[in-house]
Amino acid sequence: MKELEQLVKILSRMPGLGPRSAKRFALALIKKPDSLLNPLIGALSKLEQVITLCTICGNIDNVDPCAICQDNSRDQHQLCVVEEVGDLWALERAGGYRGQYHILGGCLSALDGIGPETLNLSNLMIRLNENDLIKELIIATNLTVDGQTTAHYISEMVETLPLEVTRLAHGVPIGGELDYLDDGTLRAALTARRQLI
Amino acid sequence: MKELEQLVKILSRMPGLGPRSAKRFALALIKKPDSLLNPLIGALSKLEQVITLCTICGNIDNVDPCAICQDNSRDQHQLCVVEEVGDLWALERAGGYRGQYHILGGCLSALDGIGPETLNLSNLMIRLNENDLIKELIIATNLTVDGQTTAHYISEMVETLPLEVTRLAHGVPIGGELDYLDDGTLRAALTARRQLI
Repeated sequence: MKELEQLVKILSRMPGLGPRSAKRFALALIKKPDSLLNPLIGALSKLEQVITLCTICGNIDNVDPCAICQDNSRDQHQLCVVEEVGDLWALERAGGYRGQYHILGGCLSALDGIGPETLNLSNLMIRLNENDLIKELIIATNLTVDGQTTAHYISEMVETLPLEVTRLAHGVPIGGELDYLDDGTLRAALTARRQLI
Repeated sequence: MKELEQLVKILSRMPGLGPRSAKRFALALIKKPDSLLNPLIGALSKLEQVITLCTICGNIDNVDPCAICQDNSRDQHQLCVVEEVGDLWALERAGGYRGQYHILGGCLSALDGIGPETLNLSNLMIRLNENDLIKELIIATNLTVDGQTTAHYISEMVETLPLEVTRLAHGVPIGGELDYLDDGTLRAALTARRQLI
């Protein structure tokens, strides 16, 4: 059936789905047209209609500026730079941060040909230059090679600004076992060791 | 954003997706509206419009009777009983079987309260009684406890009919290592051992 094959083809482009799991996915939808397939079509169409990018931070929301940028109860002195919206969600889920965000839309990658001009960096500079409230820039790019390069690039870019620039701490994950940890993390955790008493 | 939460809620009901992977899934869709989100909406709507159940075998297709039931080049003497459409797909993918199918729509389960009347069994009996061409009934339900119970139930149900009733062979999977195999399979493989020379 070509309609099904078409759906499976699109689904297998999704993260974490291969051709076989995409078929299982499609089958689950077909088996429950009223409780899954139709609600999914509805939810996707609804989302497609309302979705918009925040012109300030690059976040995805149904309003522009996004709910976080509009929220005056949040700390206006801290700005956290992340690669993707998913990273913002992760930080919000983790809790503990009540400042503003800036989404780069990726990270520098020589291999994929992603240079500074592709990322949401010029907006970041404008924001930092125009907004005197921001006192701390937290660079929360991933701990990958590309993420580290991007962090380094940003820190050099904002060097002359009167800002405190910080980076997420590296170390042993909570619940992690030393024996299973990679050497780089272990060395970083040792270097950044903290005094207990 | 409530539209996104609604989508994630529906997606996390899908097989193999938890709340976190559903969010990743949704994010991937949002990030590529033109190459993923819109084609997905289109494919789902298309599928929803054309999908129908085959009144003969219970297969899912865009025509009724389904393509397999309509295909006269297939062996009309063999009928293979499977639990779900996914099992039919697996058998078709594996190749080697060119007969007809019958989809039960599940298996007997005392725990889930699924009795014989819930399954597509009465249709099976009508088919077997009315169609003289069918000579062999291959019971290809899963090798789970419930699947085995269903196979047993069907074999008793058709006992009086002039049919050869067979079951898929149990044994060591191709590429399987004895050391990693569960004891039940190993015992079954030993019992069903075949003479080589």
